[in-house]
Formats: sequence, C-alpha cells, structure tokens
Amino acid sequence: MLNFTVGPVMSSQAVLDIGAEQVPYFRTSEFSEIMLENERLVKKFANATDDSRVVFMTCSGSGGMETAIMNTLTKHDKALVINGGSFGERFVELLTLHEIPFTEICLEYGQALKPEHLSPYEGKGYTAFLLQKHETSTGVHYDIALVSEFCKRNGCFMIVDTISSFLCDPFDMVKVDAGVMITGSQKALACPPGIAIMVLAPSALERICNTKCCCQYFDLKLALKNQERGQTPWTPAVGVLRQINARLMEIDAAGGAAVEIERTALLATYFRNKLKEHQLPFEIISESLSNAVTPLHPTTQSAYEIFLKIKDEYGMWICPNGGDLKDSVFRVGHIGALTINDFDKLIAAFDDLKYKGFI
Amino acid sequence: MLNFTVGPVMSSQAVLDIGAEQVPYFRTSEFSEIMLENERLVKKFANATDDSRVVFMTCSGSGGMETAIMNTLTKHDKALVINGGSFGERFVELLTLHEIPFTEICLEYGQALKPEHLSPYEGKGYTAFLLQKHETSTGVHYDIALVSEFCKRNGCFMIVDTISSFLCDPFDMVKVDAGVMITGSQKALACPPGIAIMVLAPSALERICNTKCCCQYFDLKLALKNQERGQTPWTPAVGVLRQINARLMEIDAAGGAAVEIERTALLATYFRNKLKEHQLPFEIISESLSNAVTPLHPTTQSAYEIFLKIKDEYGMWICPNGGDLKDSVFRVGHIGALTINDFDKLIAAFDDLKYKGFI
Repeated sequence: MLNFTVGPVMSSQAVLDIGAEQVPYFRTSEFSEIMLENERLVKKFANATDDSRVVFMTCSGSGGMETAIMNTLTKHDKALVINGGSFGERFVELLTLHEIPFTEICLEYGQALKPEHLSPYEGKGYTAFLLQKHETSTGVHYDIALVSEFCKRNGCFMIVDTISSFLCDPFDMVKVDAGVMITGSQKALACPPGIAIMVLAPSALERICNTKCCCQYFDLKLALKNQERGQTPWTPAVGVLRQINARLMEIDAAGGAAVEIERTALLATYFRNKLKEHQLPFEIISESLSNAVTPLHPTTQSAYEIFLKIKDEYGMWICPNGGDLKDSVFRVGHIGALTINDFDKLIAAFDDLKYKGFI
Repeated sequence: MLNFTVGPVMSSQAVLDIGAEQVPYFRTSEFSEIMLENERLVKKFANATDDSRVVFMTCSGSGGMETAIMNTLTKHDKALVINGGSFGERFVELLTLHEIPFTEICLEYGQALKPEHLSPYEGKGYTAFLLQKHETSTGVHYDIALVSEFCKRNGCFMIVDTISSFLCDPFDMVKVDAGVMITGSQKALACPPGIAIMVLAPSALERICNTKCCCQYFDLKLALKNQERGQTPWTPAVGVLRQINARLMEIDAAGGAAVEIERTALLATYFRNKLKEHQLPFEIISESLSNAVTPLHPTTQSAYEIFLKIKDEYGMWICPNGGDLKDSVFRVGHIGALTINDFDKLIAAFDDLKYKGFI
C-alpha cells in the first residue's frame, strides 16, 4: 500500500533491511557508537550548538512533549502556548496536568500566527513559550522567527515541537534560540514509530538540573547521564535506533538536512500544482503550509469516506483527521520514501473518484 | 551473532519478515483487529479472567512497572516489596519517588523467597505487594504461590513483574489472583524491544478508576479507553505490535503457553546438564532457577571478560551483569529462537576457553 499519511510513513530499503535483521544485544560498545553517531547527526541537522545534547526516548512524540514539560518547567514558570489544533491542545492538557501556570493563544483551525497574536503578551513576565513549529493536525506552519524574536525580547525559554517538520522545513536551533526541540522516528526520519528524539540546548540542560521530574522513566537526568556513553537507562527500541542511524547516514550522504528539505518541498509543490491542474474539489485549509503535508477540505464528499475509499479500493492511505474535523478534512503527507510517480498515482485515484461522481 | 542474552533475544523468521515490511498506517479497523487479537491471546496465555483487560504501552518493561505503580497505588496504600536484585531495587526507587508507603523485604543476591521472609508482615495492614516473579538480574525465580497465599490472607493487591518469566515459567493470573502482570516484547515474546504489556484484573481496573495518574503518557484510563476499539492514545510502536501478533499466533498454533514453557525448560535443562558434564568452572548462583536464564559465577576469570571474549572471538552474546556483579556474574538466557544446537556451540566456545586456559 502506498502511504501518504503523516506517520508511520514509508521507509527506504536500507531502513527496511535493518528491520529484517535480528536485533542485537545493546549493552555493548558497538551499540554505544551508533547512539553517539545518532546524537552527532541529529545535532548537525538541527544546527544545535556543540554543547547541546540529544536524547532518544522510547515513546511517542507525545511522550517527548510531556518529557520536555516535566523536566524543564515548574510551578514558578509562566508559560505561553499556541493552541491551534490537536497538538497545541495536547500542550495545554499537559501544562494543566503538571500545574504549570500558562496562558493559551488560541488560533482558529488553519489560521497563521501573526504579530498581533503575540503583542498583548509583551513585557508581561512570561518565562516560557511552547509551540508546534508545524501543527500537524491542520497543517499550519507557524512563523517561528516571530516567536523567536518574542522569546528573545521577553527572556522566554522555548520548547518547540518539530515532530512533523524536522527535515521538512528549515529549522535552525541556534538561530531561533530554542531550548528544547522534539521530533519522532516515524515522521521525516521515516523509520518505524517508537522513538522520540529531543535536542536540548544548554539552557534546557540547566533547567533539567534544577527540576525534579515526577516520572523516573522520563527523567532526563538519567537519560543524559546514560547517553554520555551512548546508552539508555532502560531497554530502548534498539531496532528503531539502528534504523534511525541508517536513515541519518543516508540523509548525510545525500547532502544533509537542506537537501532532504528541498526534496520534500519539491514533492509538496508538485502535488499542490497537480490539485489545481486537475481541478479537484479540495480546498487547502491552511494559511501557512509546511512542506510536510497538504491539509484538504473536500467540498463534495465526507473526508473520512474519501479516506476509506482510497484505502479499500485504491490501496493507498491518505491521512484522516479525528474529532470535529473527521468529515471535513483529510491530509496528504509528503514525507517518507515517496516519489513524484507515487503522487501521480494518488492524483489518478482522485481523478477516478471524480469521474465516478464520488467526489 | 548468536544471542544468549535476556533481551533483546533472537526472533523467529515470521517476526523478522514483518520487520522487513513497511509499517502500515494504524488508525484503521485492520490494525484495531490485530490489537484486539493481541489482547485476546495475551489474556489466554496468562489465564486472565474474561473481564480482565490488556494494554500495550510503547515503553520498556521498566516503563510498565512505573505505569502500574502510578495508576494503581496511592499514598493511602501500605506496600510490601521484595528486593533481591536490580529490578526489586527499581520497584523500591519507584515507590519512593511516587511516595507510596512501603516496607522492603531484602534478600541476598541469589536467595530464594521462604515463608519466614513473609511471616513478620502477617496481619500488619499491608494493602499491596510488589514482586518480580523472576528477578532477572540474578536469575532467582520467587515462589509466587507463597506470595499469593500471603496476599489472599492479608487482602493485598498484587503487582507482578513477569517481564522475563512470562511464557518461560508457568503463570496463572486467576490462580495467584494478581492485580497487574507486566511483561515486555523483547523477552520470551522474542520481538524487538519497544512495547510493555500489562494485564489488568478487575481489581486493578477499579484501582485505576480511582487513581489520578501524574503522567498523561502513562495514564491507563486513556490506554484502556482506546484499547476498547483496539487503538492507543498516542502513536504506538506499530511494527513491534504487528510482530507481537505474529509471535502470539505462532505460539498459539504450536499449542499455547504450556508448550512454549516446556520448550524453554528443555533448553535450560539441556544447558545446565552440559555445564556439569563438561566440568566448566561456573557456579550457578541462584537457589531457585527460572527456565528463562542460568546465572553463573565463573570461578577462574572475570565474568565481564568472558562476555567480551565470547562476543569478540566467538560471535555470540552472553548476558553481562552490571554494578556490583559485573565481574562476578554473567547469565545465559534460554529465551528466543534458540535451539539445542545453539547451546552446543556455546558449550564448545566455553570448552575452547577452558582448553586455552582463559577460564
């Protein structure tokens, strides 16, 4: 089945080949080397400073989001959080659960972040800022330069969920001065799900030192201590970590993050142009697109019915939405081992549905 | 490399074949069916009651241990915990962190659990009991019938870590009246690491309802709610869950848990007999062995040096110990896709080391 969702996505042959291998024992110098190389390459692709650190947590991206909050924020913080979709809402739930004082900046589904959304909060004593770089649920790519400038002016510690935008859209940890960056194995890294990756700037490391984490499994002090020698406190998803290594090396060999971002951008542009050219009855719902995904509102049929039809009759997955958007929005991802030819097949399936009067 | 560790272990060809496949999109009825079948088969193999539930958490077994404590125990409990090795120690750390009042029953490394260890605590108002069925670090298989009788007499809620003993040694959830049973994907299930499995009896479900979990990612209310339809709240390790399905079906087709346990027992007995027959300079350090592993103290060489030698010169992994036992104990696992022939190769390697005067 061709997979146009936003994760898990399709993997390269090198990654699949490792999946076919026995998983090795991991308390060895051989595995430590892989982990240290993973750290080095993730730092390189995120443009993190030399004194930044990377940890690999066996959990989903949401686990990574919660880990960031539990280890770097306290009741003495005053956080701002952008809530423009399901993942912004998750940050809000997590801040509530962990009793971190916060203010929510609510955006409508699809709405871009603008200077006027931030201006009311200037000089009001905020200490932290949480956002999705790309709100995956609605495909809105927020203006991180805007947030970065706000944070620099106001002395805010920035936690950025780049789960679905790392390696899809440019991200420069130094330039935006982020404290924590989070991503997952199953997005543009195009490996099986199971690992959340966190890049931690020195500002985050300092906060971690001074924060008591309420959960041992997610305690970054333990993760950091073990990662010094390329290990983890608990048995990690060893297989996925080896696949991540193969994929990072593949990206590096092809020219690095910029080349991978360009490849994704080309696929996204190709697909979006074809949508217009074929006059498909879909409206793009985001004011600010990421290269990772195109969020679409079908005007003539339920989005979820289209997802089912494409799955069951054409052998492809597009990405359904949940909750309120279930019938009104589906998404087409541009991440993973996809080619122009694959998008031609998807467009042909849409054309066929249009020809049959289904859409 | 032949792998005689206690996890990750060697997988069957059916499991490896799935590792070679693309990971499918999972918010589908097809994946839900796999998850519900996984639940049904785990319940069957653990002999859980029909109204018990199973959840699959994307984390290590230690994550499952912490999840059990966070979701079923409170400050109003008074827990007993057996601490006879690294994993008992982990329970102690977790109870401390989560502020659950507890008393520790400390056993020496290798010591079996006897009635006199429990008798001082009869009728003292204990409400919960935590133990490893098999303390993996030292290979001691505790007498769970003893603990079960104590718990029934004293009204204790039992949390059993069966991480390394599920499908290796007999376990009957109904008979021992356990509240929570925890295992992992990378032990006798012989799949890649990444998933902890928890079987929850009705007594656990009731406790979960009445307990506020301090971590959203590990909140069993959310996991249970989603598993009703064969789903998870967060993106799980989809690939491993599909591999678990293949493996559970493989075990079921071969005759179920009892047959798998018998197969493991045969390998353990074969290896232990060969050790004696070949007069190898190793002493078994456990008073009460599991079929899962044989813990050995080498009398003529550092255990860790033997581990390195076997890895680097014979292409096999035996299982090193950490901490205080690093130089005095190594372990040989009998779980995963191993055969009599594989153990012959390991014995031949030990013979060779003996011939060369290394041991």
